[in-house]
Amino acid sequence: MALSINGERLRSRLETLSRFNSTPGEGITRFSYSPEDAKAREYILSLFEEAGLKVSVDGAGNMRARLEGSVPDAPAVISGSHIDTVLHGGPYDGAVGTLGALEAVQAIAESGLPHRHPVEVIVFAEEEGSNFGSTLAGSKTLVGKYGVDDMKKLKDREGRSMYDLAKAAGYDPDSMPEFLLRPETVKAMIELHIEQSVLLESKGVPLGIVEAVAGIKAVEIRLKGVPNHAGATPMSLRQDPMVAAAHLIASIETLARGTGTGSTVATVGKISCFPNVSNIIPGEVRFFVDIRDVVQSGIESVLDGLAVIGQAVAASRGVVLEIVLVSESAPVVLDGNVLSVIEECAKKKEFIYHRMNSGAVHDACMLAPLVPTGMIFIPSRGGRSHVPEEHTDHEDIEKGAALLADALLELSI
Amino acid sequence: MALSINGERLRSRLETLSRFNSTPGEGITRFSYSPEDAKAREYILSLFEEAGLKVSVDGAGNMRARLEGSVPDAPAVISGSHIDTVLHGGPYDGAVGTLGALEAVQAIAESGLPHRHPVEVIVFAEEEGSNFGSTLAGSKTLVGKYGVDDMKKLKDREGRSMYDLAKAAGYDPDSMPEFLLRPETVKAMIELHIEQSVLLESKGVPLGIVEAVAGIKAVEIRLKGVPNHAGATPMSLRQDPMVAAAHLIASIETLARGTGTGSTVATVGKISCFPNVSNIIPGEVRFFVDIRDVVQSGIESVLDGLAVIGQAVAASRGVVLEIVLVSESAPVVLDGNVLSVIEECAKKKEFIYHRMNSGAVHDACMLAPLVPTGMIFIPSRGGRSHVPEEHTDHEDIEKGAALLADALLELSI
Repeated sequence: MALSINGERLRSRLETLSRFNSTPGEGITRFSYSPEDAKAREYILSLFEEAGLKVSVDGAGNMRARLEGSVPDAPAVISGSHIDTVLHGGPYDGAVGTLGALEAVQAIAESGLPHRHPVEVIVFAEEEGSNFGSTLAGSKTLVGKYGVDDMKKLKDREGRSMYDLAKAAGYDPDSMPEFLLRPETVKAMIELHIEQSVLLESKGVPLGIVEAVAGIKAVEIRLKGVPNHAGATPMSLRQDPMVAAAHLIASIETLARGTGTGSTVATVGKISCFPNVSNIIPGEVRFFVDIRDVVQSGIESVLDGLAVIGQAVAASRGVVLEIVLVSESAPVVLDGNVLSVIEECAKKKEFIYHRMNSGAVHDACMLAPLVPTGMIFIPSRGGRSHVPEEHTDHEDIEKGAALLADALLELSI
Repeated sequence: MALSINGERLRSRLETLSRFNSTPGEGITRFSYSPEDAKAREYILSLFEEAGLKVSVDGAGNMRARLEGSVPDAPAVISGSHIDTVLHGGPYDGAVGTLGALEAVQAIAESGLPHRHPVEVIVFAEEEGSNFGSTLAGSKTLVGKYGVDDMKKLKDREGRSMYDLAKAAGYDPDSMPEFLLRPETVKAMIELHIEQSVLLESKGVPLGIVEAVAGIKAVEIRLKGVPNHAGATPMSLRQDPMVAAAHLIASIETLARGTGTGSTVATVGKISCFPNVSNIIPGEVRFFVDIRDVVQSGIESVLDGLAVIGQAVAASRGVVLEIVLVSESAPVVLDGNVLSVIEECAKKKEFIYHRMNSGAVHDACMLAPLVPTGMIFIPSRGGRSHVPEEHTDHEDIEKGAALLADALLELSI
């Protein structure tokens, strides 16, 4: 059965959501637990109410809104994403999968078509890691990967914990154990998301069916040298961590290109230097390396190379190297049956699609080990995301939401 | 004639001065025009009064304290340094040359020995560039290299100008033209300073007679790429300014070692990355390169190489390179006669000394083109300065001040 979604309603809701933003004119900034987040949630709760969905909110701020099926206790078919953003991010990352899921569920409700399984919209809290430097914190909490103690340990730049911020935002983090996802209550999960890369655009295809999601290891590299006067210290007597960092960063790119998997990426996006004064040889340089691949061996290969080259660079320059694992997630293979349902629906709609991998991690990855999970991608213009210029044509957003609606209905009847 | 200086008095004054500090326990931080600077100046003014010196303070906060000679209008023999520090600096950089000059002038006064020329202590304001990113701002103002307009243009991080800060600290910047150094009123200038490198320590020599001071060019390198998602953007499709910066920083070291002068140094001490988030490929990376040599060709050689390699690195990665000159000063050759006087005094005292160059720039460099100028260095432990661990043995400080006293007396009789 093919549903009709209301494309104009979806467009207007995406526009409204993008107005809850702490950096107007400089992209979208909406951190979880912020005042903008609170207003955005108020708006989304009003939409849930309008759609007649039954809402529950857990102790981390994950929201679930349910359309009951004809068999009350049947496991639910769920779909959703997040509404938090990075600093100066874009209007579609997360938002499309959240409001697209609502549009799909609302289309099912409005169609009057019978379905035995409940259908749910889920809004994950704190996906981007903008507050605590840990991505997927909301979905990790939902699946029990993070407990209440972890919520107390995760701290933002000002030292405030996830536990404290969730509490201040009106949630009850201590109640989290009651809200943990019970796999037997979920039949399937599908997340709609922007691709955040250029594959779909380069192929001219509006839809991606995601087979696997890259795993990540993020490490912090700390290089300690000897701070000294930039003018008076001869080159031969320096223990300069900045030059060591430069050699290491340059080699990371080479390592990522050389793993042999063809899908490894490694990025240095954050660096800090102490004391960071132009006429002082730095005493310490720290930077983060974000390594991803759909094949675990690609990730390990970069890390192994990093350790070997790092030690050599450090030893040859008299600086001290430390490599600290900051976060990790294993590559995730999505559910073949769910993907087949999505694929069949796409064929029925005569939508062109491409089976592909995801380089970015999503909330769906946290659910995939527990419940049958699939993902649908739509194109990102120029492959760009996490930036103000992030864009997806509305036509593609509509296609994604329409495919999602059909797949959710198919899974719920 | 050989003077006796009061080593204990000098030691105690250095200790007192180091207490005017905004970062106790984390090195010495005393920016010009700060509350700590005001208190330090109050203390030094009290010492000038105690020594019976006649004080004048100019519109930038440079202080001069004069012991008259027997011929009232004879050109003065002057000596001094600065009392401002970098962030988390040490207790000796500048302080030794300031209080050492006072000790020397006071020793002359207390000796009762006749001298025709006036002898002056000078305390330069804002040497380190900690406020406005421009070193030697006080001495540049004294010699007219910076005018009142320049004082208005120099801004600190909070947008406050040197003019405004000087005014708020109680000086009258508009009066600066009346206080400009008139070369005909100065017979000679000597600055005592810590070496800030390891040459004297490595030779086991307590005193350096400085023949030349390295010139500097400081440039800011700006690399603009395309910010994007760290997970979803394949290595081959990146325009990553961080990797470009890494290659360039690594090459700067090679360039500095390869100029052929043997005295070139180049340092990257300050870097910033935008947006500086670990899972976003940066959109822009900026860093400063501080290049110094006593031979101008060494500096130019690094800069030329930087431009060539920078263009190649940028072009091959699709990033945009900009090189902005931030500051420059030419190498300075000090006065042969003044150096001979210092050398003769050292010989008479049977002090071991070494003729050498300075890699660091000093206030003396601003005066050298106008009046006969010399410098005396004393060792820095481990060559370290601009850091909390900065240290010079008091025995060496006493030797430096004693040599300075004899040389000032010799030049003033």
